[in-house]
Amino acid sequence: MDQEKREKNLSLLPIGSIVMQNEEGYCLLQIDQPFRKGLQGLENFSHVIVFWWADRMDNKDHRSIMTAELPYAEGVDVGVFACRAEYRPNPIEITTVPILAVNHEKGEVIIPWIDAFDGTPLIDMKPYIPICDRIRDVAAAPWVADWPMWMEEAAAYFSENETDFGN
Amino acid sequence: MDQEKREKNLSLLPIGSIVMQNEEGYCLLQIDQPFRKGLQGLENFSHVIVFWWADRMDNKDHRSIMTAELPYAEGVDVGVFACRAEYRPNPIEITTVPILAVNHEKGEVIIPWIDAFDGTPLIDMKPYIPICDRIRDVAAAPWVADWPMWMEEAAAYFSENETDFGN
Repeated sequence: MDQEKREKNLSLLPIGSIVMQNEEGYCLLQIDQPFRKGLQGLENFSHVIVFWWADRMDNKDHRSIMTAELPYAEGVDVGVFACRAEYRPNPIEITTVPILAVNHEKGEVIIPWIDAFDGTPLIDMKPYIPICDRIRDVAAAPWVADWPMWMEEAAAYFSENETDFGN
Repeated sequence: MDQEKREKNLSLLPIGSIVMQNEEGYCLLQIDQPFRKGLQGLENFSHVIVFWWADRMDNKDHRSIMTAELPYAEGVDVGVFACRAEYRPNPIEITTVPILAVNHEKGEVIIPWIDAFDGTPLIDMKPYIPICDRIRDVAAAPWVADWPMWMEEAAAYFSENETDFGN
């Protein structure tokens, strides 16, 4: 494919938005009506990969930054493709979270937490499938090598270490 | 955020494209010049999550399909958010692959394989970070429950079982 064809703008349509707390203290992925049938069967998976649009970083300045200073690693300056910074050429973030319940009629996926803001636009969801997403032999960069090897241990670790897990 | 604000089009800019085979038989993530500085430090990670745009499915028909018949599970009809089908409201796919090498000057990330096509537009890359992406206690739907629990076992499994891992 030539450069010109790639340079055409690709457009995304939000499928819903994130509600940070409902009355029971959970977060919701609130799916707009036209997309609710797409939830069929999602309740059979324990985890979902949530794709959200970092709309607070969606401006020309933030999208043209190519390196990040990491809040959790003093003096380390890495490229945006080597960290999870929200400012990046395409401000798409993914967060893998447990599925607590799916309400098909209301178009809601109930989750315990997510690192987004209230009202953040949702753009996709995919089931977490071990054969695609679960890597056995993995090595992370020195500046995150002390972090636990499992998502389940994240909350306890960051709580104990008071790490600023910003990017 | 109200519905109207969410309905605005969000636009993506391709950052490069996928080259399926170079002369040594590897695949390349070929990054366009303006984005190459974003690769800084990526070589410190063993795996990268590649975000690609399923441009062959990017049309009105494919983007409005909400359920999929799974090629690997006869008779199972699930929502697009409960599978990895390339047709979906926003045809973004992710593939986690090992990083073999990063050539910063040429803007290339060399990988052993990827389930995309030659010329597929790249839209993002993120390092695979265990504390974000590696789920210990995971359950997948009955129709994929027989699949191995690790990405490393995928090739051998599908080769032995002749499964059509289409979606």
